[in-house]
Formats: sequence, structure tokens, C-alpha cells
Amino acid sequence: MSTIPDWITQLDTPYLLIDEAKLKSNISYLKQRVEARGSHLRPHLKTLRTLEAAEYLLSNKDSPATVSTLAEAEAYARAGYTNLLYAVGIAPAKLKRVAALRQQGINLQILLDNMAQVQAVTQFANQFEQDFSVFIEIDSDDHRGGIKPQDPQVVTLAKELGPHFTGLMTHAGGSYACNTATALRAFAEQECNAVRQAEKQLNDAGINSCVTSVGSTPTAHFGEEFSDISEVRAGVYTTFDLVMKNIGVCDFSDIAMSVVTTIIGHNKEKNWLLTDSGWMALSRDRGTASQDNDYAYGQVCKTDGTFLDGLCVNSTSQEHGVIELGDGYHPEDFPVGQQLRILPNHACATAAMHPVYHVLMSDRSHNTWQRIIGW
Amino acid sequence: MSTIPDWITQLDTPYLLIDEAKLKSNISYLKQRVEARGSHLRPHLKTLRTLEAAEYLLSNKDSPATVSTLAEAEAYARAGYTNLLYAVGIAPAKLKRVAALRQQGINLQILLDNMAQVQAVTQFANQFEQDFSVFIEIDSDDHRGGIKPQDPQVVTLAKELGPHFTGLMTHAGGSYACNTATALRAFAEQECNAVRQAEKQLNDAGINSCVTSVGSTPTAHFGEEFSDISEVRAGVYTTFDLVMKNIGVCDFSDIAMSVVTTIIGHNKEKNWLLTDSGWMALSRDRGTASQDNDYAYGQVCKTDGTFLDGLCVNSTSQEHGVIELGDGYHPEDFPVGQQLRILPNHACATAAMHPVYHVLMSDRSHNTWQRIIGW
Repeated sequence: MSTIPDWITQLDTPYLLIDEAKLKSNISYLKQRVEARGSHLRPHLKTLRTLEAAEYLLSNKDSPATVSTLAEAEAYARAGYTNLLYAVGIAPAKLKRVAALRQQGINLQILLDNMAQVQAVTQFANQFEQDFSVFIEIDSDDHRGGIKPQDPQVVTLAKELGPHFTGLMTHAGGSYACNTATALRAFAEQECNAVRQAEKQLNDAGINSCVTSVGSTPTAHFGEEFSDISEVRAGVYTTFDLVMKNIGVCDFSDIAMSVVTTIIGHNKEKNWLLTDSGWMALSRDRGTASQDNDYAYGQVCKTDGTFLDGLCVNSTSQEHGVIELGDGYHPEDFPVGQQLRILPNHACATAAMHPVYHVLMSDRSHNTWQRIIGW
Repeated sequence: MSTIPDWITQLDTPYLLIDEAKLKSNISYLKQRVEARGSHLRPHLKTLRTLEAAEYLLSNKDSPATVSTLAEAEAYARAGYTNLLYAVGIAPAKLKRVAALRQQGINLQILLDNMAQVQAVTQFANQFEQDFSVFIEIDSDDHRGGIKPQDPQVVTLAKELGPHFTGLMTHAGGSYACNTATALRAFAEQECNAVRQAEKQLNDAGINSCVTSVGSTPTAHFGEEFSDISEVRAGVYTTFDLVMKNIGVCDFSDIAMSVVTTIIGHNKEKNWLLTDSGWMALSRDRGTASQDNDYAYGQVCKTDGTFLDGLCVNSTSQEHGVIELGDGYHPEDFPVGQQLRILPNHACATAAMHPVYHVLMSDRSHNTWQRIIGW
């Protein structure tokens, strides 16, 4: 492993470390992959939620992007980004904030899957002479929300939306349960087929202008053909994490996020290390618990990134982590004050715990990025 | 149930709601209980981490308080608080921030349990002529860190610390596994006995000045006798939560924290409600999963606080919650746009997801409190 710059071990722990070179590589790979298969990416900005990460993910201020909260939409709009999809079913009371952004020239698009939401949109539109751009959510995997692709409600809602209707959107969250290339390819095809089928319903009903939006990190990496799909969304591929490694989307070496922690003690009787990174720094996410390889609260590495096989953060409290030393590891090799790096189960959840990220730039210099916080 | 003020349903969701009347009642009850048993409280500020909550928890600026990060210590010090215990084993590199606060006249006390930390303290103290105030952590329940009460290391470390030694501290985190009054009383006694035994070692070795600090929310509420204990610490009692309800420390009606959420859709086939509160708003904490009553990601109530028996947030993604409607509940009673309140599994974890809290004051007015963020 390469030597690391001094600043990495001089910051107070716990802190979140982003590896810029890996970030760039992950972003570039998926962009090229999707474009080579005939579509383009609408990256989800929810993993890192920073203006700096958006500069890596988006080619220019009009590039399509996805957000998970209106707070993100407002922050990216202030920074000049104009093409944003808020990919959570719209609560009627939030339409006023959506309208405020649209009145500033931001093409903030919204999502819905039921007539109550459609009526809220059209009533607001009529009352305030406000145009909206609305995606109907299609349920491609029986996972969460959305309308089944064959449900005639797709046509009913699109017609009722009239000029506010923009397209069909689905998210194959169920793909996270796959772990073979064959299953992932099939899931990606299923995801695309769901919007294809719903789009055919619309075409048959005379609605011919329809954007189609699919995606999740696993399906974006395994879909074989996107040429009839308008856009593909993905988010956690920006940094990847242990859940994605278990699914088979990346390798350990692609994970661009870690939490740097300090050893603060030992429980010699139990052969434990105690660290200053609990669930406040790592998150409570146990996404690998249901997968073939469970990394507990995260995989332990040295500060230079060297993987320490078999070492995980086994348990956490608010500001403490416990690492159980297995065979071949000795407490004297982990003195108090020494730092370690923890690869996260779920990058979105771990990043959410940190107001600031520290970034190892490709030239070994140090940047800090501020997270956009709140709703 | 009482009617609620209009502002409760007019804020954008998800948001964190604190009930001031319950907060005050919880705080007042434990203060009186501990004082009636011969000791005093050193409240842990980590649950809410706001200057406003500190005003409820602390009688004056010199009242004893506990913090979980140096960022909290620095923020409370700026607000004039002078008596703070940083209750996470000290990382040697953090001594410079501790020293900076002590030089400002803040009695910031630190914690340790091993000779490497002691040597870091004494070396720093000698090099910079800096006094410290140090607690030695005692392991009262084989749970995490600390020195066993009978271990002669207690005396060795205290002697090596010399003038920097202040006292003995233990935290019965293991009490969270109890759920009967008998077991909790026994655990509280075990916690006190651990510091009593360690203190006796010190007295026998000629060290007679020793502060003793015990506590966790369960043991603080069930300990029968604290008259020979200098201080009792507790944190989550400020608002309580479902984990504490399961342990038997509080009732549902004492829980002073909830997350207000909006219904954004239905999955009628599955009889699900979809909401705009995922794990970003509720936290990933599944603390009740290992208890007798599992509330999944939180117990559902109406906005006026009416308990909806059997309704939980069953699953979450980043910004979505799924509530499975059981027998006796009908989707038409939960229209899109209607709000609900979710009681948290673990108040510390849920509060950590929110940069701002909205507070229902006893006079029904609305306050906002800003969370102290970071390390």
C-alpha cells in the first residue's frame, strides 16, 4: 500500500474520509457504461449531499440529477443546478416549495403514484397558474410504492395530470437482495420492462411523449441494454460500500469512503479493542447482516487502507466501537492512540452522520466538503 | 387527547417534535429521586445536544454535566457552562483540546482506563504545565471498557496520575438488558458496588479523596441508595423512548420525542401506508428488536398523540417509511397528506438525525432548538 500523507493521522477522530481518486473512477465507470448502452445517467446526489460531489457527478449546471429532499433541491438550485428530480412521492404540503423553485427557473420534477397527489398537483397548478413536471412511479419489484405497470391507473393519472405529466419512473430497490450477475441482469431487465410496459399503455391511450427513468446502483451496473430508456439513476456507486461489495457490484478496493477512528483502550480479557467511533460515526446501519458476509458495523483497515482480514467493528454504542480481535491478531499490535479506518456497510447512512467530509485528493492534499443537512 | 395547536400540522415533514411538558416532568422526577437518595445528578447532555435542553437539565452554569464529544464540551463552554465530564476514554491526540478548555477556566474532566492514556496525560501535563482532572473508568458489568473493581491497576493508575486523579466512574450499559424492577435494582446496586470496591482499594492504598460517579437511565431510576456515591449520570431519561419503555423505566405517555411524518401513498394490495420518514428521520436504530416488544422503526400515533395500537413503521429506506396496517385499520382512514407521529426506539439515535428540533411548549407555542453537531 502507498504511504499516506501526514494530515490523515493528524485530524481528530472520528472523521469521514473520502478518496477522490476512487470517487472519480467509480463515477467515470458508470457514466461510460450507461452511455455505451444507449442512455444517460441522472445521478442521485443523496449519498454525499455536497456541492463538491455534485461537481464530479454532473457535467454542467443543466445536467440531470436526482435528490431525496427539498433541502437538497434548494441547495443545488442556489448553486445554479437547474435539472433536478425529487424522487420521493410528493406530500401535497410540499408543492409550495416545489413551485417556488420552478418559479426561479429550476426544472424541479416531482414523483407521485396516486390520485390524491394528482389532484393536489392540478388544484395547486390551477389555483396559482403554476406548471409542474411530474413522474408517475411504477412498481417494478413489489418493493415499496408505485403503480403496477399493467394497472390502468397509469393512464388515468397521466391523463388527469395533462400538461404536467412528464414520464414514468421506477426504482428497483429489490435488486439489493441479489448477489449474482445473472440475477442482477434479470432484475435490470425487469426494471426496464416495467416502464416499457407502462409506457406502452400510455402510447395505446394516445400519450406519446413520455420520459422513462429507471435505476438503482446494482441494476445500473448490470443492465445490458438501455437504448430505449431515457435515463438511468444511481447513487451509492459514487463511493460504494460493503453492501454493494456483497451484492457483487464492486470490490473492497473500490470503496471510496471510510471512517477514521482512534484506539482508546483494550479489554484484554476479551481480546477487544475499544475505539472512539460508535454508531454516531458509523451509523446504525447493519445492511450486511442479511447478506452472505456480515461485516457487523464495518470492516477494519489500517490507515493506509490495508485490509485487516476478519476484523470488524463488532458492536457500537453512541461514541464507542468494539473490535473483537480474532486469531492471528494481538492487542499489542494495536496500541492506544493508533488509528484505523472502517469501511462502511452503507455509505448513504454513514455519510449522513457527518456534517463535514475530509477528502484525500489525488495529489495527496486535503479538502473538506460540507454536507447539506435537513429536509 | 387534547387538541393540538395548528403549527404542529403546518410544518414540512419529517421533523422532530419535543414535548416540553413531558421533558420537564422527566427531568424533574429524576433530579428529585436521586437527591432524595442522597446524591445528585450529572445529566448527560448527549441525547438532545442543545443549549436549550441544557437549561432544563442544569440548575446553573456551574452545575455538573456529562458530554459525549469535545464538540459538545466546546459549545457548552462557549455558553458559559464550567463543569463538564467528557465520558469517552480519552484519545491522546485530544488532550490539546481538553487543555485549551481548561485554560479557559472550564473544569473539563476526562476518562481513561489504561496506562498508555495515563502516560499521555502526565507527559502532556509535565510538558505544558497543564493540570487535568481525570476519572478512571471501572467496569461494573463486563460490557465495554474499564478496569475491574478488584484489579490492582486501579491503584497503579491513580498513583501515576497523582494530582490529576479525580475519581472513579462507571456506566452500567448492561442494565439495558434488564426488564424487571428486581433486576434493575440489583443492577444499580452492582454498579454502585463496583465503584465502592474500587474506592476501597484506593483508600487502603492511602488515596482518600475520590469522587464516585455511576449511572445509566435504568439504574438511576431503580437504584435504592446513592448516599455514599458522589453523583449519578443519566441521559436518555430527558425524553425517554421505546427501549426505555420496554425496560420498564417509563410509560409510553412519558416519551417526549416523536417524528412527525406525512402519508404520501398506499400499497393497497399489501395494506401498507407509505410515509416521508425513512431512516434519515427515524434513524437505523432497532433497539427494540431484541426486547419483548419490537416496535420495528417506531410506534405510530396520531398527531394529537393518540396511540395507534399495533401500528409500527415496519420498514424504512432513506426517505420512505412503510407502515403495515393490521387488523382493524383501513387505508381510507389514513388519506394522503395526513400526518402521523412516530415514537422513537432510541431517542439519542433519532435526535442525531435532526439538525433542528421543534418544541411544543407547555403554553402550546412553538420553539426551535438547534442541535450541536460533530465531534
